[in-house]
Amino acid sequence: MGQLTAIILGAAAGGGFPQWNCFCPVCGLAWAGDPRVKPRTQSSLAASADGRHWVLLNASPDLRAQLQATPALHPKQGPKQSPRDSPITAVVLTGAEVDQTAGLLTLRERQPFVLYATAETQSAVAANPMFNVLSPDVVTRQTIAAHKSFTLPGGIVGELFTVPGKVPLYLENDNPELAREDGANVGVELFVGGNRLLYVPGAAAVTPALATRLKRANIIFFDGTLFADDEMIVTGTGTKTGRRMGHMSIDGEGGSLTALAGLAARRIYTHINNTNPILVDGSPERRKVTAAGWEIAEDGMRIEL
Amino acid sequence: MGQLTAIILGAAAGGGFPQWNCFCPVCGLAWAGDPRVKPRTQSSLAASADGRHWVLLNASPDLRAQLQATPALHPKQGPKQSPRDSPITAVVLTGAEVDQTAGLLTLRERQPFVLYATAETQSAVAANPMFNVLSPDVVTRQTIAAHKSFTLPGGIVGELFTVPGKVPLYLENDNPELAREDGANVGVELFVGGNRLLYVPGAAAVTPALATRLKRANIIFFDGTLFADDEMIVTGTGTKTGRRMGHMSIDGEGGSLTALAGLAARRIYTHINNTNPILVDGSPERRKVTAAGWEIAEDGMRIEL
Repeated sequence: MGQLTAIILGAAAGGGFPQWNCFCPVCGLAWAGDPRVKPRTQSSLAASADGRHWVLLNASPDLRAQLQATPALHPKQGPKQSPRDSPITAVVLTGAEVDQTAGLLTLRERQPFVLYATAETQSAVAANPMFNVLSPDVVTRQTIAAHKSFTLPGGIVGELFTVPGKVPLYLENDNPELAREDGANVGVELFVGGNRLLYVPGAAAVTPALATRLKRANIIFFDGTLFADDEMIVTGTGTKTGRRMGHMSIDGEGGSLTALAGLAARRIYTHINNTNPILVDGSPERRKVTAAGWEIAEDGMRIEL
Repeated sequence: MGQLTAIILGAAAGGGFPQWNCFCPVCGLAWAGDPRVKPRTQSSLAASADGRHWVLLNASPDLRAQLQATPALHPKQGPKQSPRDSPITAVVLTGAEVDQTAGLLTLRERQPFVLYATAETQSAVAANPMFNVLSPDVVTRQTIAAHKSFTLPGGIVGELFTVPGKVPLYLENDNPELAREDGANVGVELFVGGNRLLYVPGAAAVTPALATRLKRANIIFFDGTLFADDEMIVTGTGTKTGRRMGHMSIDGEGGSLTALAGLAARRIYTHINNTNPILVDGSPERRKVTAAGWEIAEDGMRIEL
């Protein structure tokens, strides 16, 4: 393996693809088993510098299925007395939305690891008694300040940085700020040797500070929620624009195709909503994105830096 | 289809089989892909009287994968304007443990259904703000008194009944009552025509009242968590007996093999822990159980009454 290995555990936005209650044109292809689309679970990435200690970026509701499908994350039969084991030593959260945190409930069963998140996210998680299945004598919850690096198990250095976005849906009030920038929505930068990996599953806009990070990265996993800002309205699947949900779209004015053009890094769209036509092999939208040099994340995609 | 169709969505206890961090002898076979064992997701059952309205008994953390694997529960392309659809019209909870409730987070996305549970379980769920993704203007939370029948969508009549057990692990105090009998742990009886289905995934003991229900049932899905009361201690996977966890074991004094002997009903063990050797085809424990007339639940098992 290289200096840093990354495995996409899931590449879909909240709800997954196909989504349990959706028969939009793209989900319809998935339900029918059409070979132009591949099902995807909810967004998460596993990273390791040594192949023995793995860090999860977000813990999606699909985490148990994602772990089953990923041999690198299976427990090993060790020499110890206890049969309980896992190579997962840390989880880093970029927010407290259901699709970022519900998988923590899968990581119960008294297995030690460290949970890294901002104060805003730790507080939102702690407000739910159910997460007490992660007992404090077993799982350490470490609050991380944005824009300060910290060392993860296995030799990766991480940094959380604020990205314009919004608070989790279940904490919204009637007039949510749609592009507030605080610890409720962050991206992750991982450094190993000279490599820099950026994971930004949700961004409402590219600020100058984010642009600086994008420029120095070797590889970027970026918010690919919607192709068009009004996509959910047009498909009849929702009443909100991408902006209303805290996500800049791929195409159009203020979209990521334009905002991230000309970067040297390998660029991969992830956190892709079930309505997004880039999920369909051969679609005009997929062709437009790949012609611009982007890749489309898939579950199980493995990258060595 | 018959008068009542039941599909086992998952047959494993909390953690599933194999469990993410377990290399006990039985999980070891699963990780190695040994054909004597079949992986199982966490316990849940879907039932329908008409094939169009489906009721879920418990919503496990594996619910999204379970729905993907079950065509009867997929959305259909309908004549309506909205592409959002689901045949799932109700969820009934037997408790508020993670393996009984976390799947509710999968049922977000503004899809109407009714959530039926006792006051104790509704209260434990409501204490977690994250479940507010099930917005009250979309999902109706209906409190059900034990021992009183209620009508489910699609023509099934249900009844919840108290079963000795305990409160969810994350709500335990230092000295939990291990066989308290109140609304925190219930079983479900479903009636259609002359048929009675019993679903009892957790029982610390068989009371005279439970014995009466068992006698009149046509089919019983019963707590198969552990084969032996000290199984987790012996395998080094835990420090608790089955009794301590609120589950009577299958074998031994006070076990379900003895307590449920001689019943006329079809009897199926479900909610099976990953350490339980009845998961291994050909094991002495499996042979003992099947020789006593029991079946072992598997994911996807379909039963028509």
